[in-house]
Amino acid sequence: MKWTSCTPEGFTVSPGRVADLVREFAQFGALPGGGVSRLCASLADGRARDRLGELLQGAGAEISVDAVGNQFGLFRLLDDRLSVAPPIMIGSHLDSQPRGGRIDGTMGVMAALEIGRLLLAAKHAGHRFQRNFCVVNWTNEEGARFRPSLLGSGVFAGHYTEAFALACRDDAGETLEDALVAIGYRGKDKAPPMPEFYVELHAEQGARLEAAGHQIGLVTRNWGAVKLDLVCEGEQAHTGPTPMAERRDALLAASRAIDAVRRLADNTKAVIHTSVGRLVVSPNSSNVVPDRVEFTAEIRSPDDDILMEAEAAIQLQLDELAKSTGVVLHRPSRSIRLARAMPETMVDFLAGCSAALGKQTMSIDTVAGHDALSLIGLCQTALVFVPSIGGIAHNEAEATGDMDIDAGTSVLLEAAFRLCGGETPASMGHQTRGPA
Amino acid sequence: MKWTSCTPEGFTVSPGRVADLVREFAQFGALPGGGVSRLCASLADGRARDRLGELLQGAGAEISVDAVGNQFGLFRLLDDRLSVAPPIMIGSHLDSQPRGGRIDGTMGVMAALEIGRLLLAAKHAGHRFQRNFCVVNWTNEEGARFRPSLLGSGVFAGHYTEAFALACRDDAGETLEDALVAIGYRGKDKAPPMPEFYVELHAEQGARLEAAGHQIGLVTRNWGAVKLDLVCEGEQAHTGPTPMAERRDALLAASRAIDAVRRLADNTKAVIHTSVGRLVVSPNSSNVVPDRVEFTAEIRSPDDDILMEAEAAIQLQLDELAKSTGVVLHRPSRSIRLARAMPETMVDFLAGCSAALGKQTMSIDTVAGHDALSLIGLCQTALVFVPSIGGIAHNEAEATGDMDIDAGTSVLLEAAFRLCGGETPASMGHQTRGPA
Repeated sequence: MKWTSCTPEGFTVSPGRVADLVREFAQFGALPGGGVSRLCASLADGRARDRLGELLQGAGAEISVDAVGNQFGLFRLLDDRLSVAPPIMIGSHLDSQPRGGRIDGTMGVMAALEIGRLLLAAKHAGHRFQRNFCVVNWTNEEGARFRPSLLGSGVFAGHYTEAFALACRDDAGETLEDALVAIGYRGKDKAPPMPEFYVELHAEQGARLEAAGHQIGLVTRNWGAVKLDLVCEGEQAHTGPTPMAERRDALLAASRAIDAVRRLADNTKAVIHTSVGRLVVSPNSSNVVPDRVEFTAEIRSPDDDILMEAEAAIQLQLDELAKSTGVVLHRPSRSIRLARAMPETMVDFLAGCSAALGKQTMSIDTVAGHDALSLIGLCQTALVFVPSIGGIAHNEAEATGDMDIDAGTSVLLEAAFRLCGGETPASMGHQTRGPA
Repeated sequence: MKWTSCTPEGFTVSPGRVADLVREFAQFGALPGGGVSRLCASLADGRARDRLGELLQGAGAEISVDAVGNQFGLFRLLDDRLSVAPPIMIGSHLDSQPRGGRIDGTMGVMAALEIGRLLLAAKHAGHRFQRNFCVVNWTNEEGARFRPSLLGSGVFAGHYTEAFALACRDDAGETLEDALVAIGYRGKDKAPPMPEFYVELHAEQGARLEAAGHQIGLVTRNWGAVKLDLVCEGEQAHTGPTPMAERRDALLAASRAIDAVRRLADNTKAVIHTSVGRLVVSPNSSNVVPDRVEFTAEIRSPDDDILMEAEAAIQLQLDELAKSTGVVLHRPSRSIRLARAMPETMVDFLAGCSAALGKQTMSIDTVAGHDALSLIGLCQTALVFVPSIGGIAHNEAEATGDMDIDAGTSVLLEAAFRLCGGETPASMGHQTRGPA
């Protein structure tokens, strides 16, 4: 196989077009600082989904929405309208963090839309294809409004049932189902079958590509992650007269837990990232000793054994903290994602696609979760990173240069022309990839 | 002066009547656990205020509502309708903590209502008075929805301007003014003049009366209290890829501050109560390093010097914490209430009123703030406690026995008959009061 471009002339990515789409979508949930608050199944998310649907239809796709709101746009590249051949799927997500960035998942969805448009245009111009193409916008990738994250792709992959996903509640007690109904995205369509290939374009959300001066990062593995939903239960009391020794202060216990979670990362030589980003105090009045604090602790590591050891260490410390503060500690749920390798065949294939366009690549880890991880082992998956300026992510200042967006989209377009054209990736082992 | 009862026969407190009123008012913001959530200027507070207004009018009072929603019911006991003689005022507050108890301020307002009714009935039966009587329901005593606490009585006393109070915002950003307008209690009436005497009945919210077997506690002093509104400002980032060393985690800094505030009380032999009851995280998503945490720290002590030293020690530790976590720490506001003595004359007078009814009393501190504290030095103030079962307060399980409510109301009724009858308290120095 020779790594020369298979993208036909006249059907390459127009410079700035995907970046313009990203800019257009930044209006949905726009914030004064340039970012977006487009929580899953919010009204802003609904408007963004509506606009994506319009654009997909305008580009010739057939739209479907499954029970958990995953939004699909099928571009029929085969003349046989009864073909059940599993398509190539490319996409990401439109939901954002509160005060999140405009790039995040939006870029991957916009790139997929543009790739679908170009493929169909090529077909209309006489180009012959062997496989259909499907764009996807997954529901609740972020895990910001509803937990767990990667929920829509997780249902599609069979990791969660529809019923489980629809019953997830936000901090105000609203279910995902009610929120989807409210924006008209509690779909009735059957999801498409599992694709043969799933490829996702995403911003790195770190600064390694930028530091190395590369436009294209090929994800070879993801870090493992444990997420612990924790609840401290103490006793509500007056902060004035109640003797200090009698207080069972849920916020004190949670605070000491947060400190312990951080010290775990600071006091080890192993590579561990830890965080507590979410904490809800009840009744949350300055004159009342809190009786209930809910919070979520995360531990991430590239090494699953270290991850397990770290979780055990935290659990021990939490138990001790609970005892010393007189607080009861519950762990209503725990989710784990083990560290896994991306299929080498696909990494090699994407490296070839990049090489065909004259782009050097570097191997890279993903520390963050992405929908592609939901599908590992179920289909041939690939995850392609482009640089995040300054490594800034989950922040209004998040940005990726227009030329980097074009470069990433072009690599995926090349892959799409090859895969939809019938090519089947095989491990080539010829490109230079060091350990991540 | 002889301490025999001046409450005329036929006009004593009907057993259980005030407790029944308290039970009736527990419907406004009722919770399944028997408590109430009746935040200041909420719809439930509006309904409670409406019902109080009805009951006051039914009992013959003239209602007025001042600019910050303080609700007054003037019982004219003098025939001269032009009299400007400052009245005796008795009252407390109807607002509650979130998931608060049904007794708290409600009992004091209901006792005042019943006292007004009995005084006017006595007048109609021919009893002669020298002073008018006024019931008051103060706005936002709790400081739960709007901070600072004691806000309505603070405006009445001149500690805060009306404009300051009306501009206070809850955590959702709504102003007290808008909230009062919404329930129809942004009043236009001039507040009554400063009374000559202000007496308040309240539950102890501690367990000292219960332990001593006394029904009546006479507050001789309040503890000093410093309340610090604090803000940690870090930087929003992805909890996954962002290197630990680059994180500026506002929640980590706040958690360490909460621990430091607690250790201050635990590591000293001085009498200090400390707490953090309120904390708001932003953006509060499990995958985002928080960039902003607001919280309120309280320090209380019976000794103002210790209070000042404790505040200085906390400030030092906060500054160090901020440095070590890379977080900027602001203190947008600070309020202080110094420890003060209640006027001895009034303590003696209430002891006499109790003695006249055959009730033993004990001297007691108030650690919590009460509206009576707003008026110290501006009029003759007294604060009378009745037992809290198990010392439980700011909790749905808060309770006071019906007989204790009757006992407390009877002491205030005796005081009201004497004061409205023209008696002027003088220090008697004859009752047994030990140091608090």
